[in-house]
Amino acid sequence: MPELRQNRFTKEWVIIATERAKRPKDMVVLRAPRSLPSFDPRCPFCPGNEKSTPPEVLRVTAPNDSRWLVRVVPNKFAALQPELTPRRVVERSHRTVNGFGVHEVVIETSDHSQITPLMPDSQVASVFRALKARCTDLSLDSRIANIIIFKNHGVDAGTSLEHPHSQLIATPVISSQVRSRLHEALRHYDDFGECMFCSAVEEELQDKSRLVVVTDRFVALEPFASFTPFCTHIYPRRHMANFADISGEEITDLARVLRLVLAKLYYGLHDPDFNFTIRSAPAECAGVKYYHWYLSIIPRLTRVAGFELGSGMYINTVLPEAAAEFLREVDVESAAAPDKPQLVTAAAFESGSRG
Amino acid sequence: MPELRQNRFTKEWVIIATERAKRPKDMVVLRAPRSLPSFDPRCPFCPGNEKSTPPEVLRVTAPNDSRWLVRVVPNKFAALQPELTPRRVVERSHRTVNGFGVHEVVIETSDHSQITPLMPDSQVASVFRALKARCTDLSLDSRIANIIIFKNHGVDAGTSLEHPHSQLIATPVISSQVRSRLHEALRHYDDFGECMFCSAVEEELQDKSRLVVVTDRFVALEPFASFTPFCTHIYPRRHMANFADISGEEITDLARVLRLVLAKLYYGLHDPDFNFTIRSAPAECAGVKYYHWYLSIIPRLTRVAGFELGSGMYINTVLPEAAAEFLREVDVESAAAPDKPQLVTAAAFESGSRG
Repeated sequence: MPELRQNRFTKEWVIIATERAKRPKDMVVLRAPRSLPSFDPRCPFCPGNEKSTPPEVLRVTAPNDSRWLVRVVPNKFAALQPELTPRRVVERSHRTVNGFGVHEVVIETSDHSQITPLMPDSQVASVFRALKARCTDLSLDSRIANIIIFKNHGVDAGTSLEHPHSQLIATPVISSQVRSRLHEALRHYDDFGECMFCSAVEEELQDKSRLVVVTDRFVALEPFASFTPFCTHIYPRRHMANFADISGEEITDLARVLRLVLAKLYYGLHDPDFNFTIRSAPAECAGVKYYHWYLSIIPRLTRVAGFELGSGMYINTVLPEAAAEFLREVDVESAAAPDKPQLVTAAAFESGSRG
Repeated sequence: MPELRQNRFTKEWVIIATERAKRPKDMVVLRAPRSLPSFDPRCPFCPGNEKSTPPEVLRVTAPNDSRWLVRVVPNKFAALQPELTPRRVVERSHRTVNGFGVHEVVIETSDHSQITPLMPDSQVASVFRALKARCTDLSLDSRIANIIIFKNHGVDAGTSLEHPHSQLIATPVISSQVRSRLHEALRHYDDFGECMFCSAVEEELQDKSRLVVVTDRFVALEPFASFTPFCTHIYPRRHMANFADISGEEITDLARVLRLVLAKLYYGLHDPDFNFTIRSAPAECAGVKYYHWYLSIIPRLTRVAGFELGSGMYINTVLPEAAAEFLREVDVESAAAPDKPQLVTAAAFESGSRG
């Protein structure tokens, strides 16, 4: 029987359509595996082509080594421009702000072929260190109201350059979606005197059925009202509203957990296109007790159609509990072993699809 | 210079990225034209295969002709099931409703190849008459809270069957997105004592720059804060909150306006995939002075990426005013003339892309 479930954080309903349900293994991506060279002379993000990008904002290097591990550069095709003073204009019913903003690219690795799901954990940690540094720095600019961190992996996820990179866009407004999430969280806090995210994580740790990876510092899980198949959240266990408050130890652990979840998706579903985004409170709310940042991974396995556009509700054909069980059972270490093929075998899928 | 514009109805911001802007003609779809037979013996929606669908709910026929013009049937792969009593369960933080709902398909024509943009206006009117009748009927069912009407045209718009059809899904809840739109409209009414949609249409009629088609009864325009290229709204000029209150004359006119706009998109952009949806107030709010239904057409020319998922804001690379000018200049009659090719020539695009 289908079931409607309500997302606690947005109050939006999701239809879990078990009648038309797909088993997790039916979501495996059917296409030729991606095959990238480790160096592409035409790629603006590859070493040696540093002059193809606007001047670097930040560089991460290894000790005693001049080569870069991670570079942060302004987006050459930026959606917004940093050399402006934001000005809001109200003219009859029209509300506009000129296009002030910051749009930066984090080049995650010098290796063109090293996609995030297969990166060393330490490299992912360097990316998060760069992101934290940029957020901390940009938060000092009073023209900026909010910073969105995101990654597009693959054409279906909206990427145009295949060299592994993530991005941030700092805007002079707080979007209505972000405002609404803060508002719902505040209502919960006023009602129950607790952070609804801390409370949700505790409940999920007790329930166990939707857990994917648990460490001392982070919990990765399939949300109860997951809007798409295999949407996965990673929550810090320590209460923090703003991503930039993450500690060094937490960065190391987040990198490990994110990399493991992405590798499970990579081996389990055959390298799906995906996005991730960090749902952080704006810096102006960094200290609040009611909001809690988390990282949301959205594999792009389905298409948005007219019902979703018209209602805001989604139809998810994979039960979150089944997706969690499937991901728990993907054995990344044996899938990645050098004497094994790079993608899991049919037998592994069968075991993953039980129930 | 890019510009942020705020959607009046949702309060969400859109980035109009004129720096990375595309001219309207750059959005022309590059792929082989769709070519469908007028009859496909394997198609469950083609005449003669009526038994492949669940029993008909409604049939539109011509006078003195037993053949059907439009059929409405339950969706064989329904997301929700009508044989249930909706029951809301609150268990700790989890909110669920069992999967009660109605999911119907409107088979728009007996001709497999007759896509909506090329349909006779009278056929489109028959589709709307069927939709109105179904809404009126379903609104009597107290288990139903809201009805979403939508169409998916093409694979990128989420369709799986190519025979022209639209759909409706009736849900036992009002989605958060719909609630939020009603709430914003009510706030405006309380502030200004007017329907914000009536007022927006008046303002657009004076401004003229975003108009596409205007008749005595309907106005088609590109919204000021359009979230994607060529998103087009069609508003009834008479105040009505609920779609089912549309009159017979209005149906005739809406069919003509919708068909003309879809034909402009078809000839102007080379048959893009698209969705449309009717943003109606739920039946329980049918009489309200603050909300106003409209039809929203969303050509699927771009992909949603991590920024949109993370912020709720969209980046639109086509200026709404340029899209409106382009669509005004697409001459559907000459493009459709039998001695002309079925798609407009390069010269026509050039003239459409001025400014």
